[in-house]
Amino acid sequence: MKTPLYLGVDLGGTAIKAGLVDPQGHIGSEGERPTLPERGRRQVIRDMAALCLDTLDRAGITAADVAAAGVGVPGRVDDRTGVVKWAPNLGWRDVPLAALLGEALSCPVALDNDANAAAAAEHIAGAAKGHENALVVTLGTGVGAGVVAHGRLLRGAHGLAGELGHMTLYPGGALCGCKNRGCLEMYASARALAGPGQKAVIEDPDGLIAYLAGGRPERVTAELVARCAEKGDPMALAAWDRYTSDLALGLTNAARVIDPGVIVIGGGVAQAGEFLLRPLRQKMDALRIGGAGAPGIVRARFSARAGIVGAALLAADAAGEKG
Amino acid sequence: MKTPLYLGVDLGGTAIKAGLVDPQGHIGSEGERPTLPERGRRQVIRDMAALCLDTLDRAGITAADVAAAGVGVPGRVDDRTGVVKWAPNLGWRDVPLAALLGEALSCPVALDNDANAAAAAEHIAGAAKGHENALVVTLGTGVGAGVVAHGRLLRGAHGLAGELGHMTLYPGGALCGCKNRGCLEMYASARALAGPGQKAVIEDPDGLIAYLAGGRPERVTAELVARCAEKGDPMALAAWDRYTSDLALGLTNAARVIDPGVIVIGGGVAQAGEFLLRPLRQKMDALRIGGAGAPGIVRARFSARAGIVGAALLAADAAGEKG
Repeated sequence: MKTPLYLGVDLGGTAIKAGLVDPQGHIGSEGERPTLPERGRRQVIRDMAALCLDTLDRAGITAADVAAAGVGVPGRVDDRTGVVKWAPNLGWRDVPLAALLGEALSCPVALDNDANAAAAAEHIAGAAKGHENALVVTLGTGVGAGVVAHGRLLRGAHGLAGELGHMTLYPGGALCGCKNRGCLEMYASARALAGPGQKAVIEDPDGLIAYLAGGRPERVTAELVARCAEKGDPMALAAWDRYTSDLALGLTNAARVIDPGVIVIGGGVAQAGEFLLRPLRQKMDALRIGGAGAPGIVRARFSARAGIVGAALLAADAAGEKG
Repeated sequence: MKTPLYLGVDLGGTAIKAGLVDPQGHIGSEGERPTLPERGRRQVIRDMAALCLDTLDRAGITAADVAAAGVGVPGRVDDRTGVVKWAPNLGWRDVPLAALLGEALSCPVALDNDANAAAAAEHIAGAAKGHENALVVTLGTGVGAGVVAHGRLLRGAHGLAGELGHMTLYPGGALCGCKNRGCLEMYASARALAGPGQKAVIEDPDGLIAYLAGGRPERVTAELVARCAEKGDPMALAAWDRYTSDLALGLTNAARVIDPGVIVIGGGVAQAGEFLLRPLRQKMDALRIGGAGAPGIVRARFSARAGIVGAALLAADAAGEKG
């Protein structure tokens, strides 16, 4: 018997990525195109379909060889009806994406949001595999998360489970895009590292951050600040220390609710590896109550490809439930 | 066919309560004895067994008519082995309670912690019935909670799910008994209302709180402050407003993780009914993101008897899984 193959699509605000994925999460062929959402949804969906067919073509197969396709969407979806409810970065409201793409590809299409897709990748084939309860966190422009409970992805009553980025960390704190104050996202996203780094370029023009950024604040990224902290730059180290403390507090708050066996960390900031995970473990350990058990803190297996793999594995899951 | 009957035991630091419960959560006979944990566990367990047999006797039946018994414990338990791992209010560590009580009663005994028992009562037969995802919160001396995910009680990887009382609400805030700072319990337990009320007796000797407490701070309870707030006393109202704001923030943080369809509120403070729930709904509504769905906020069906009913229904559940 042949191994079934699935198409996974990661629909981002900047790029559409697609890949051919097997049930173990291995990627065969893959491809990428700019999203250019300002063209309108019709053109974007047409491009998604073309990218998918290209990806199959590159692997020497056709849509008939694919069991199902899945799409990870940056926003709120109704995974039962396959409708994108609201994707602010795309400007989409109530788009029946599963139906439209399914028509173009002639195979069943499953939708989910991108944080759930990443969580599915880690849960089914990655660092959360085998855990009945897990939290899969993506540290990027925002802070996204997927929750695994009783061995299954938890979407919640309104598809909002895992909205860790908008837990209040500091009541009355910095104003967030969601209009609330003090959201975790303001302190634990990549911006929370880039911001102090940009300030450091001005305030510490002889420092390592300013040097590596060529004196230009707009060139400072979270990754650059992480690199400078690893090299011992005092301003970068201070930002890093603050960042890991706030992240430890936010993750502990979430862990108090669901008591995960493992917390998987992915996204751009997680590329720092043990330099991030070690202080995180120490600081979360200090917040433990009594001698109670603590979750393992591990790095994601799928970083930039979590969306592709997760969307494909969710499609496999959905196809399995129906088939 | 006869309706099966279950014994439910609520083992508290102050009192042991037992009741005979049917699968719909109705209580037949019931009884209560002081716990007096200083007598040692052997005597406490002997008394539990005697209370159970008394309760059966009062209903005119014997242990042979009971399908199973359940105990809600104020602490950490291993629900698979039936061992109380750590119950600080009783001073118990590693007590094989299910085995010891099962021997005395000649029926299978299931254990769980008291917050899970209360959650089970509401989930199986109370205000959370029919919800796949729910949060059942008990506002008492502490803040306890049980989580329902995918239609089942979520215990977590280390039996710690639902530890809402020790989510950090104010980083660097008031020192909690758990040794962390700013725990929700410091702002949303009954003490958070009684404390300002006690201060009001001193600072506002002509106020309603001082009058109803007979000028004695030690007589002020959370219920008294709630009553004074309902009657419009300014100091009580200020404490109530602060309390409901902090509770709304804490519950919203928990809801961001699991997105429950309903949040059930029980415990002493919940006796204020709509006077508590109305501002709570308003304040949680103000924290919503976009037009996203919000959980219903409802009062618990079982208040003081949630422990008895939940322990019995958990025993029914455990017996059903084995039978």
